[in-house]
Amino acid sequence: MSVNLTPPRPEELHPVRGVRLGHAEAGIRKPDRKDLLLIELAPGSRVAGVFTRNRFCAAPVTVCREHLAGSVVRAMVINTGNANAGTGEPGLAAARATCLATADLLGCRADEVLPFSTGVILEPLPVDRIVAGLAACVANLGKSDWRDAAQAIMTTDTVPKAVSRRAEVAGCPLTVTGIAKGAGMIKPDMATMLGFVCTDAAVSQRAVDTLVKQAADRSFNCVTVDGDTSTNDSFVVAATGRAGNDEIDDLGSPAGRAVAEAVIEVSMLLAQAIARDGEGATKFITIDVEGGRERDECKRVGYAIAHSPLVKTAFFASDPNLGRILAAIGNSGVAELDVRAIRVWLDDVLVAANGGRHPDYREEEGARVMKQAEISIRVDLARGPAQATVWTCDLSYDYVRINADYRT
Amino acid sequence: MSVNLTPPRPEELHPVRGVRLGHAEAGIRKPDRKDLLLIELAPGSRVAGVFTRNRFCAAPVTVCREHLAGSVVRAMVINTGNANAGTGEPGLAAARATCLATADLLGCRADEVLPFSTGVILEPLPVDRIVAGLAACVANLGKSDWRDAAQAIMTTDTVPKAVSRRAEVAGCPLTVTGIAKGAGMIKPDMATMLGFVCTDAAVSQRAVDTLVKQAADRSFNCVTVDGDTSTNDSFVVAATGRAGNDEIDDLGSPAGRAVAEAVIEVSMLLAQAIARDGEGATKFITIDVEGGRERDECKRVGYAIAHSPLVKTAFFASDPNLGRILAAIGNSGVAELDVRAIRVWLDDVLVAANGGRHPDYREEEGARVMKQAEISIRVDLARGPAQATVWTCDLSYDYVRINADYRT
Repeated sequence: MSVNLTPPRPEELHPVRGVRLGHAEAGIRKPDRKDLLLIELAPGSRVAGVFTRNRFCAAPVTVCREHLAGSVVRAMVINTGNANAGTGEPGLAAARATCLATADLLGCRADEVLPFSTGVILEPLPVDRIVAGLAACVANLGKSDWRDAAQAIMTTDTVPKAVSRRAEVAGCPLTVTGIAKGAGMIKPDMATMLGFVCTDAAVSQRAVDTLVKQAADRSFNCVTVDGDTSTNDSFVVAATGRAGNDEIDDLGSPAGRAVAEAVIEVSMLLAQAIARDGEGATKFITIDVEGGRERDECKRVGYAIAHSPLVKTAFFASDPNLGRILAAIGNSGVAELDVRAIRVWLDDVLVAANGGRHPDYREEEGARVMKQAEISIRVDLARGPAQATVWTCDLSYDYVRINADYRT
Repeated sequence: MSVNLTPPRPEELHPVRGVRLGHAEAGIRKPDRKDLLLIELAPGSRVAGVFTRNRFCAAPVTVCREHLAGSVVRAMVINTGNANAGTGEPGLAAARATCLATADLLGCRADEVLPFSTGVILEPLPVDRIVAGLAACVANLGKSDWRDAAQAIMTTDTVPKAVSRRAEVAGCPLTVTGIAKGAGMIKPDMATMLGFVCTDAAVSQRAVDTLVKQAADRSFNCVTVDGDTSTNDSFVVAATGRAGNDEIDDLGSPAGRAVAEAVIEVSMLLAQAIARDGEGATKFITIDVEGGRERDECKRVGYAIAHSPLVKTAFFASDPNLGRILAAIGNSGVAELDVRAIRVWLDDVLVAANGGRHPDYREEEGARVMKQAEISIRVDLARGPAQATVWTCDLSYDYVRINADYRT
């Protein structure tokens, strides 16, 4: 199941100058599926990433952090089927071996390669199959497209996730194209499962470092499916500089804003696609929290609603059991919340005010909204100017089925 | 479903001198079920309570706090079917009207009555039906027993929850009997849904105030089903003083310890019964976390495991997907956790060490443990002397079914 999510059409996914893609069926966990992706970046590309805060972070995340410290990146390798997490020293060695094999094939240094893995935790990475598959990826370089790439990084995703936008800076056309994967183990204030956004814009390293954080904060850090943070969450922005624009150093300049807006839009649509494709999702839910003192407390309220299993099952049942939303707000842990001042809307229907149900609220109005596939909850905390948005999905039988059967 | 939980046998539930019980079928939400309970306490009883920290706390919780400040309590009234939460000023008036009606029938003051409600949120309390039912409760006083009482406070519970213990202090026999209800919306660091433990021991007000906190910390504050904190969570300890012992003021004295241990044991068994009867539960899971710097961080790790939907669905599937446990530990938010030092056992099977799977671990050993109805997870953080235990259950199709259908 997914909510209003269709596979991207190839003609909507624009190639990015300076990026070549190659995929393979390496048989890492299951035969006959794309499970290995190589993203080759032109020399001089600027790359930055944000990663999971899970203390049990996976070996590839550790290696990515090391290699990004060197700041030259020529390739990214992504495998599915195995997360290379909870694998100790042998896992680190396997991630490094993947980088070395890629470097040998491409003629670059091993520390210019970033490794990414997703799949089962606590099992050894089948590094031989990955190394064997890399030759096929290299043979495919330039023949694979962004849809192939999006398919090659899927696990429990039901729909490949890829988004592309074009922009123009001082008469110079730019492209931003990104892919992401993730359907479960998706949690707040971290990056995503895996997201890669590439642009041919010329952007300074300092600006890419800032841009990846801005984009994550507005996209992957606003989405949750089940409140579980993966050991492997990674989000990378790469700028190849092949568009020919003057290098952008200031994201506040007109050119900087144009690129930032396109990268953020692509990231946001990819993040929303993850919630739309949340494991077992039948509803896509947007939670807008306004009137907070700070953005952080708005996010806490949004996540308290988005993580409540009782709220999520009520949405699955199309049941306007709105008391559960109020209870979740009350559980957000935000200090000195005056519940009598809070107002809650379901789409355009004012549901709660003065600490209780609004006198004009009618159950049939709530039921009408709850039947929709896309629903927005708006909460006004009435104590400040800050705002935040969180995207999530409902909790259905299929979430349990998918996660009870995952390894079988 | 429930896990190894049988209804208490009447002969195991000892009456408490100074406590009279009366129940009624008041038709609050559904006909032909016990839904109203009156607990009458002898004059001179000492009563203390702990309550939800949900900011949207229910009207009866607010009234309980007010009335407990006066420190004389003669009766407790509990209704199911309606939580009287998210009901604003009319809800407070309804809770006060319930107290007044009880006081009129019993010949005490309204502020000597504590009201408790559980059920649907955001709907007006049908106070007329409650007042009408109270007369039947009073007529039943002394005829109802503790099993009736446990049944009268059930909502989605499948088994009534009541526990009784006897103790002796300086040759004086004492009784402790308690009841609880709750199966969903059960979350950490709060009281429970509803729990009432009564003893005939003579205990000073100061000691009861301490005892209720100690007992909650060791019982209801260690249990979680779905991480949702109710608006109505309440836990009360009442001591009638009718056993004839010398009043206990020091819980560290031999007499104090004897009473405290009995109250804590009854509370702990009631709390465990809530996890055993967790909505849709097919497994009862005990999470022991040791080697922490402080008890609080042990609890955080325990709750991170207990709240992870991925861990809970793996238990439902009897799948030893142990990487999910490691990922949950990594998500606990405990600072400076050295994941290489952490060891994890599933019952007696050492699963993880040195940041990965233990070399001696065999999948069939994990699978053997996962098939059991009762499973313990032991985590050694290896950085201090503190310990904590959390009880929970798995996440099954039935959890979704129960919560999707709750109001229908």
